[in-house]
Amino acid sequence: MIKAAVFGYGNIGSGVVRVIEENADRVEKAVGDKVEVKYVLDLREFEGDPIRSRVVHDVDVIVNDPEIQIISETMGGNEPAYTFTKKALEAGKSVCTSNKELVANHGAELIRIAAEHHCNYFFEASVGGGIPIIRTINEALTQEHLLEISGIVNGTTNYILTKMDREGAAFDTVLKQAQDLGYAERNPEADIEGYDAVRKIAILSSLMSGQNVNYEDLHVEGITKISSEDFLYAAKLNRSIKLLATAKKVGEKYLAMVAPFMLSKDHPLASANDVFNAVFVKGDMLDDSMYYGRGAGKLPTASAVVADVIEAARNLGRHLPINWEEQPAKLVAFEDAKHCFFVRIDRASADEAKAKEVFGKGEVVTVDALANEFAYLTEEMSEKEFAAKKASLNGVLSAIRVDKRA
Amino acid sequence: MIKAAVFGYGNIGSGVVRVIEENADRVEKAVGDKVEVKYVLDLREFEGDPIRSRVVHDVDVIVNDPEIQIISETMGGNEPAYTFTKKALEAGKSVCTSNKELVANHGAELIRIAAEHHCNYFFEASVGGGIPIIRTINEALTQEHLLEISGIVNGTTNYILTKMDREGAAFDTVLKQAQDLGYAERNPEADIEGYDAVRKIAILSSLMSGQNVNYEDLHVEGITKISSEDFLYAAKLNRSIKLLATAKKVGEKYLAMVAPFMLSKDHPLASANDVFNAVFVKGDMLDDSMYYGRGAGKLPTASAVVADVIEAARNLGRHLPINWEEQPAKLVAFEDAKHCFFVRIDRASADEAKAKEVFGKGEVVTVDALANEFAYLTEEMSEKEFAAKKASLNGVLSAIRVDKRA
Repeated sequence: MIKAAVFGYGNIGSGVVRVIEENADRVEKAVGDKVEVKYVLDLREFEGDPIRSRVVHDVDVIVNDPEIQIISETMGGNEPAYTFTKKALEAGKSVCTSNKELVANHGAELIRIAAEHHCNYFFEASVGGGIPIIRTINEALTQEHLLEISGIVNGTTNYILTKMDREGAAFDTVLKQAQDLGYAERNPEADIEGYDAVRKIAILSSLMSGQNVNYEDLHVEGITKISSEDFLYAAKLNRSIKLLATAKKVGEKYLAMVAPFMLSKDHPLASANDVFNAVFVKGDMLDDSMYYGRGAGKLPTASAVVADVIEAARNLGRHLPINWEEQPAKLVAFEDAKHCFFVRIDRASADEAKAKEVFGKGEVVTVDALANEFAYLTEEMSEKEFAAKKASLNGVLSAIRVDKRA
Repeated sequence: MIKAAVFGYGNIGSGVVRVIEENADRVEKAVGDKVEVKYVLDLREFEGDPIRSRVVHDVDVIVNDPEIQIISETMGGNEPAYTFTKKALEAGKSVCTSNKELVANHGAELIRIAAEHHCNYFFEASVGGGIPIIRTINEALTQEHLLEISGIVNGTTNYILTKMDREGAAFDTVLKQAQDLGYAERNPEADIEGYDAVRKIAILSSLMSGQNVNYEDLHVEGITKISSEDFLYAAKLNRSIKLLATAKKVGEKYLAMVAPFMLSKDHPLASANDVFNAVFVKGDMLDDSMYYGRGAGKLPTASAVVADVIEAARNLGRHLPINWEEQPAKLVAFEDAKHCFFVRIDRASADEAKAKEVFGKGEVVTVDALANEFAYLTEEMSEKEFAAKKASLNGVLSAIRVDKRA
């Protein structure tokens, strides 16, 4: 019998207990031993709930219990999760987390501490809940030089963009619907401004580079400026508009960022709609691959935590190396990053010849329903160059980066 | 230094050597030690090739060399691969294979032999070359009760169907083009009749059930009867036609089969086009997920073999359990399997009222270009029931199963 504890009995934490108990047959078969949740750490009492007898309020009860070998950290946020996780790892207990905030902030350090104490810090559930992307990068693709990881890693924004695409609705309208349905939070900033996605791409690009990518160093743009007009053009171009969290190897450096992109409907990522997530990975030998599933939700996320609990249980006393050092990764300066751009221009301020004069070679796109404007699809140029050109042209209504691949 | 050998220096085997040597930095980092290919077993001499000095013709040189700890079996076919693999495992050497034929025929037995000799028999590359689906099932999803695994697992047929869909071309025309381009073999039977796909779904459904599924017990239909007319209807229905290898849990039994299906273009599998493969997996907690990539090709397949070599190197002397017993899995009799059907009917022989009388409730579909016929989309019924109804109606031109999901 392997004894485990759960830190934080909220949505995900209670899901972890449920998956371990409802699928106990599968867990036992996978581990070769039963796994039992002995404690739940939470400030609440849960009077009348069957979990009541296992609830403790003091982390030291768990950390000092030599029977406990594995902990699920499903508290979220930096503190006290950081302090509690360090204590647990220093006591030689493996920690399996869904806490992207903590992993993005302290992942490399916590992996080192786990290594020093012959245990493991696993975080499959921190990115793309129901998609085993972390294990894929750390185990299935370790032989590859990874060239790109680009993902749709936030379900709320993907739901909103999918609805805007299908229904022609405005951003504010769809956000309100999403809030009413519980798909978006009352304070939706973390999702719609890309703050959630940028933490996830910091984690993925750290694993890609083997060094630490700080999300505070990355360019991040959300979806609040995306309009129903943008989708009219996108449809004409056979494209979707997706919030991409993307990391690419550029020479010996890495470019990681979050922004909306126009993406061909033939690109595999374009098939991820509604609340689904997908992560596209390109390796030097493997070429293109993609991993698709539910990015959030109680049971898919809890299932990912339990997959880590099983891996930890199969490797008690044995640290499995993860390629993520504390040294900072070398990043491409955002202003030097190169992209193609879609630019909407007001005809009252500039004509097509003027657009060509400013942006250089490119393609004019028009939509019947929008007679007072046109769009210009530029060739590839640096962010700095584009920003200067855009500032020099009157009548620019909006701009979106374009992924030119089919 | 870990010493390895490669059985069979063909397309995949030479790729394995290339990945291990070109990506030696990645392999060393993942393993924590260098991996060297000491021998290549092949009947040929490879005069003038740098590999020449490592070529041996006698398997016993490799099996009796105590330095060798890991073998890539990339010979293909049952014999002598089966005999050589058994010898290697019995000598305690882990074997990593791309040989779907051997895995489908003897997987459960070879896993047992590996367990008895504290080594591993890994076969990531046997299904969906560049897609880490085997590792995903065996490691990332072990906590799940899997409800469905459905895949597009043959690149040749997917290429042909994609071309027929996009260009409206006939099967024979596209097959000839595919042969000229090298995407289809001169003797294409194994691909177009579904014999390749059925071996792969036998492997996947064995892992799903934990017991042995013999591909000879499964229903298999290829794509030779799919016509350009079928694609006209599919387009009208917003569907693709895909050769699906599918396994579903039905009560306590499993239904596994290979056949063309009409699939909604909104289903994630429909985004796998050309030679790409994709595998859809539904679990009880995880819900829907999908894994997409190159299904074949020298380097993607070799990369998958090398991922297994790394896993074997990380676990020398330690058998990692795989849930696949030799006991036969309980299968649903094909005639009892339930599907919806798309049926093309010649108007000269039967009208829409007659179709409804025979097939019961359903939907009539017509296409302007095909005035002399119509199609009928039935509700769900058993294969036995459908076969009887179809036989009782004159004028049935063709029939394809329909996956009714969005």
